[in-house]
Amino acid sequence: MQVDGQRFLKDLHMLRSFGAQGVGVVRPAYSEPDVAARDWLADQMRDAGLRVEMDAMGNLFGLAEGPSLLLGSHSDSQPTGGWLDGALGVIAALEIARAAGGGVSVVSFQDEEGRFGVTTGSAVWSGNLALDTADGLLDHSGVSLADARQAVAGMVTGDVDSAQFTGFIEMHIEQGPYLEANAEQIGVVSQIVGIRDMAVTLTGQQNHAGTTPMHLRQDAFQALSAFNTALNDRLRNVVTPSTVWTIGHVSLSPNASSIVPGQVRFSMQWRDGDGDRLLRMETIIRELAAEIAQERNMKLDFGPMLGLEPVQMDDGLRSALETAAEAEAPGKWRKMPSGALHDATNVSKLMPVAMLFVPSIGGISHAFEEDTAEEDLVTGLRVMARAVDQVLAG
Amino acid sequence: MQVDGQRFLKDLHMLRSFGAQGVGVVRPAYSEPDVAARDWLADQMRDAGLRVEMDAMGNLFGLAEGPSLLLGSHSDSQPTGGWLDGALGVIAALEIARAAGGGVSVVSFQDEEGRFGVTTGSAVWSGNLALDTADGLLDHSGVSLADARQAVAGMVTGDVDSAQFTGFIEMHIEQGPYLEANAEQIGVVSQIVGIRDMAVTLTGQQNHAGTTPMHLRQDAFQALSAFNTALNDRLRNVVTPSTVWTIGHVSLSPNASSIVPGQVRFSMQWRDGDGDRLLRMETIIRELAAEIAQERNMKLDFGPMLGLEPVQMDDGLRSALETAAEAEAPGKWRKMPSGALHDATNVSKLMPVAMLFVPSIGGISHAFEEDTAEEDLVTGLRVMARAVDQVLAG
Repeated sequence: MQVDGQRFLKDLHMLRSFGAQGVGVVRPAYSEPDVAARDWLADQMRDAGLRVEMDAMGNLFGLAEGPSLLLGSHSDSQPTGGWLDGALGVIAALEIARAAGGGVSVVSFQDEEGRFGVTTGSAVWSGNLALDTADGLLDHSGVSLADARQAVAGMVTGDVDSAQFTGFIEMHIEQGPYLEANAEQIGVVSQIVGIRDMAVTLTGQQNHAGTTPMHLRQDAFQALSAFNTALNDRLRNVVTPSTVWTIGHVSLSPNASSIVPGQVRFSMQWRDGDGDRLLRMETIIRELAAEIAQERNMKLDFGPMLGLEPVQMDDGLRSALETAAEAEAPGKWRKMPSGALHDATNVSKLMPVAMLFVPSIGGISHAFEEDTAEEDLVTGLRVMARAVDQVLAG
Repeated sequence: MQVDGQRFLKDLHMLRSFGAQGVGVVRPAYSEPDVAARDWLADQMRDAGLRVEMDAMGNLFGLAEGPSLLLGSHSDSQPTGGWLDGALGVIAALEIARAAGGGVSVVSFQDEEGRFGVTTGSAVWSGNLALDTADGLLDHSGVSLADARQAVAGMVTGDVDSAQFTGFIEMHIEQGPYLEANAEQIGVVSQIVGIRDMAVTLTGQQNHAGTTPMHLRQDAFQALSAFNTALNDRLRNVVTPSTVWTIGHVSLSPNASSIVPGQVRFSMQWRDGDGDRLLRMETIIRELAAEIAQERNMKLDFGPMLGLEPVQMDDGLRSALETAAEAEAPGKWRKMPSGALHDATNVSKLMPVAMLFVPSIGGISHAFEEDTAEEDLVTGLRVMARAVDQVLAG
């Protein structure tokens, strides 16, 4: 097939205009710009000869006749997001469906950015999350998903059967620094890393910061700091250079400068491509927290463990992407894990999936400054088109 | 004079009922229970033959005729506070004024607990803080002191001249564990320690917690943890067993489990009886924060330094308290510094001051569980009454 790089870039900039704010985009799920963007996308799908359907969640499909390969991503953005993120994968899918003239369907999933959860739209579509349960989820301002999705009610046609799709390929920006740092244009994803996330609470004794001697304190912040320092040390023997762990949320109580903090609740999140390593890390985290709590005479509580297992990309689809990457960007591509979660994680429950990345300038994403060189965007489009050609020729 | 322990305890329990919540008290400055308590206190002062006056801040005075010794503390509480704290000193003053029948005035300062700052009421009365400046202070919910103090506007009579007072004695709970641990009933305060308090902000780079490799992160929480660990180590050579330092407030941004925190703002507070030591600690804190910021390529900002110098108690008043303590609780009292700040710190700018402590059960204060044995409360009252007798006879 012959994709049109200029038409692809023009459509990408058109989608950018929905919710544009400076160079960034404010287009969270079910917002007015999100609904307007889906309406515009539906028109483009129809113009490309696709049948437009939308399920109750607002996942928008442009369907080819008969069995087809599904391409796409999501067109909702973070509350203050970049212009590419999921939009890139949706518009690349549209251009390839147009160029292929059959055999290729397009999807824009809803609420990948998690206004109501995590990849909510594809989670419901893939059966990982029941719609009834999803309907009860609330955003940060207390709006329920059930209420929010009324904004797309006029476009809903009904369920979309996944059995018609032979596989799913998602193109996305890397959201990290590796490709740019190595002057590469394409990342073919080997796996999407697994994630573990739990809240940890350490409870000591709130006390007066002037009259409580240091040796009698049960200071929750000091316990957290000691835990963090020891954890960084103990994980060294277990992790690889692509393992990550983060304490991103910390809530002290009572959080006042003149009071020894009696309690801390913090988030402990870790990600790796190897399920066994995730488990070894969990053991270290739980044992170390228990040691710290015992040493300091504090109470320890773990919240529920949230997690997603690592997802391997399909060999056949991945191999087609690798062949295409070498043809379009010889020596300028790499195999790499995805450290970020994507809709492909959910879709992998239903069919073979694969992903490819293009570079993120400065590794920046989920921010207005997010950007990718036009040349790299078009190279990504060409690699995916070539891989689709090979898969369809099967 | 002959003080009445039962009447004193009865009044103390009556004051407890304003803002009572279980065994604790919720009576922050200018709240409805605080204003009602001041109204009740004014009645008790009048019944004791004192002239009631209130200044614009809401500091409530019961004035004896002619020159007098001022006794008292504050009747406002922490947002969730204990029943004794400042209330004890106010009711002890009331009982002694009643028993003395002249020469003793009573005060309940306003906002000692710092809804708007630190010992705000006595700071304004003593001239340490201009009323205009104080009026611009905001509480955590954004209410200005200017607006809040309208709640007592109906009781305000005008400025109260400090020249009529020959000295100030404040009785308070210890808010620490020393007296109880040593089975002692009275602490005669030698000095109130000095305090330094400043906000520190470290700014790195907010980023995706899945795609940003550990070695490329500029994680503000990790910087704080490293600072804290190194600080505990470096201070060891400078501090004494009674020196304290606290990180009690931590605010991460954006404070989300899936985002590498780009910024942390935290409180750094330290206290000691020696002004030189406070300065040496400041140097260590500033230098270490700068080192951490440089190592991690982060931006460092220090907020304004709030501080109070250590305050020595007046020799004459202190000696009267020591003599009285030995008479009422022979062998069961000690001289000790006050690690907590008190209204006496501000009042020391105007006149000789002294303080005495009674034990805090379990060292607990600023919490609902705060308590002191009735026997110790009454002993405290007797010691102060005996000392006042001696000073007035002086």
